[in-house]
Amino acid sequence: MLTGDDIAVRFRSLQLEIVAALCQMDTKAIFNSDEWQREEGGGGVTMTTEKGGIIEKGGVAFSKVEGKISDSMKSHLNMAGDRFMATGVSIVLHSLHPLHPTIHMNVRYFETDLGEEWFGGGIDLTPMYVDPSGAAKFHWALKEVCDNVDMGWYDRFKRWADDYFYLPHRSETRGVGGIFFDRLIPNDANQKEEFFNFCLNLGRLFPCLYEQQTKEIFPYPTEIQLNWQALRRSRYVEYNLLFDKGTQFGILSNGRTESILLSMPPMAVWKYNYCPPNESVEKQTLERLKKDVDWISFL
Amino acid sequence: MLTGDDIAVRFRSLQLEIVAALCQMDTKAIFNSDEWQREEGGGGVTMTTEKGGIIEKGGVAFSKVEGKISDSMKSHLNMAGDRFMATGVSIVLHSLHPLHPTIHMNVRYFETDLGEEWFGGGIDLTPMYVDPSGAAKFHWALKEVCDNVDMGWYDRFKRWADDYFYLPHRSETRGVGGIFFDRLIPNDANQKEEFFNFCLNLGRLFPCLYEQQTKEIFPYPTEIQLNWQALRRSRYVEYNLLFDKGTQFGILSNGRTESILLSMPPMAVWKYNYCPPNESVEKQTLERLKKDVDWISFL
Repeated sequence: MLTGDDIAVRFRSLQLEIVAALCQMDTKAIFNSDEWQREEGGGGVTMTTEKGGIIEKGGVAFSKVEGKISDSMKSHLNMAGDRFMATGVSIVLHSLHPLHPTIHMNVRYFETDLGEEWFGGGIDLTPMYVDPSGAAKFHWALKEVCDNVDMGWYDRFKRWADDYFYLPHRSETRGVGGIFFDRLIPNDANQKEEFFNFCLNLGRLFPCLYEQQTKEIFPYPTEIQLNWQALRRSRYVEYNLLFDKGTQFGILSNGRTESILLSMPPMAVWKYNYCPPNESVEKQTLERLKKDVDWISFL
Repeated sequence: MLTGDDIAVRFRSLQLEIVAALCQMDTKAIFNSDEWQREEGGGGVTMTTEKGGIIEKGGVAFSKVEGKISDSMKSHLNMAGDRFMATGVSIVLHSLHPLHPTIHMNVRYFETDLGEEWFGGGIDLTPMYVDPSGAAKFHWALKEVCDNVDMGWYDRFKRWADDYFYLPHRSETRGVGGIFFDRLIPNDANQKEEFFNFCLNLGRLFPCLYEQQTKEIFPYPTEIQLNWQALRRSRYVEYNLLFDKGTQFGILSNGRTESILLSMPPMAVWKYNYCPPNESVEKQTLERLKKDVDWISFL
């Protein structure tokens, strides 16, 4: 039977595998590694990079924490019991070039002293300029990993991502979505293994997905592109601080701030009531940030 | 008896008075005025400025909204009843020069269909570089306005601001604080008038406070100062999106996004685990961002 400790050990290896793959892709990216411990129990390794050739700022974080389930965790995160253990790998990469996307992945495992255990995770893509055929390739790869386990998962998890990675105050999705799942509760030891392997497969897919989205080399960006990138990054900040459950869990469980806020972009710009000009590619992207788009149909 | 409508009318005048005073101080600041209406009821006037001589980005917003008290407003904002009416003036100004502060003011009035009514508000100062004697002048002026009504208010509201304008995940205050108060419930019509006048007096004090903090003219900022300003602005973003109740109220009550997020700085920078060098003035500022400092003692 797979224990929480086993899962943590393999998540830690996954982190290293992913960093190795990213370094092969972006030969200018150097990752620093910070080990940290948490007073209440557990700790992690936060690997960060900045000023790479492809990645402007990014992090690949592993953590394994345990502690008391606080009242705010109970009410905000719908958790029961006295104590929890959580382990996972979280990634956010902000690309240097405005024509390369921001990308996020997370896989996680929770258990409580009530004997409850579940997996959660997700991958989603946030291009500054939406390219439907790029979104299609991204979704197709996710569908393949889902289909391996359950032919219903992709549709379900894709819809879940549409609902989850959504900015209600902007009436826009964070990007072209991806998949999201939470409280995937295994029925038995076999299923636990199966769900865990699904998380590992997503993790292993991650570097390929990012490579697929960044392999095209573009000329030096225009000022319009750079300004748009800075503005779109502010929407990423808004999403993460206002809505992201991982960020909330981290802050509420007295997590390590710098590891939680690894997801922040290097820089973000706010302009009051900015609307891109009609017919512009920027406006076109805004119009594409909608739920329920069947991205795979653009293949 | 002062009605909600009376209060709204006078808050709207207060907005115009403040904008007029700011334009006199910063002759390069031009305010644009946006009138908006809300489907659920009410609306407002958002006055914004950017690229002034002193103010880099700022807004003075008036609103008067009414609507249903949603479940999330009940749980997050501790409100009871079916319907509410809220009116207020909110200001955030981000100064151009790193040696000039960010400043915030809000005065507001709420009533519900249960017959409850209360005032709330606050003013706080966020210097990028803390100057204790500037903080002392700021607090002294606030104390004078408080003392006019109740000799106990300044201490109480100053402590409240220390607790409220606090970033627990950074273990730092947002700046040098100021005053904060909420649910100031009048006992009778006279007291309602008194509390309302207190709010108006704070509003009228605001331009003087900002002038006091920005009248010194500094040479063109260094790169170190500009980088530090951009980093400190990211803390302002974190506070507003993670903790600020006004922002949460706005987002949860389906408010006008661009008016709520008026408080965002023009630009913010995040660097992983940044610590200013020992003995630097930046480090000194960090060490001064503490609760329970008796700023007036630095007069």
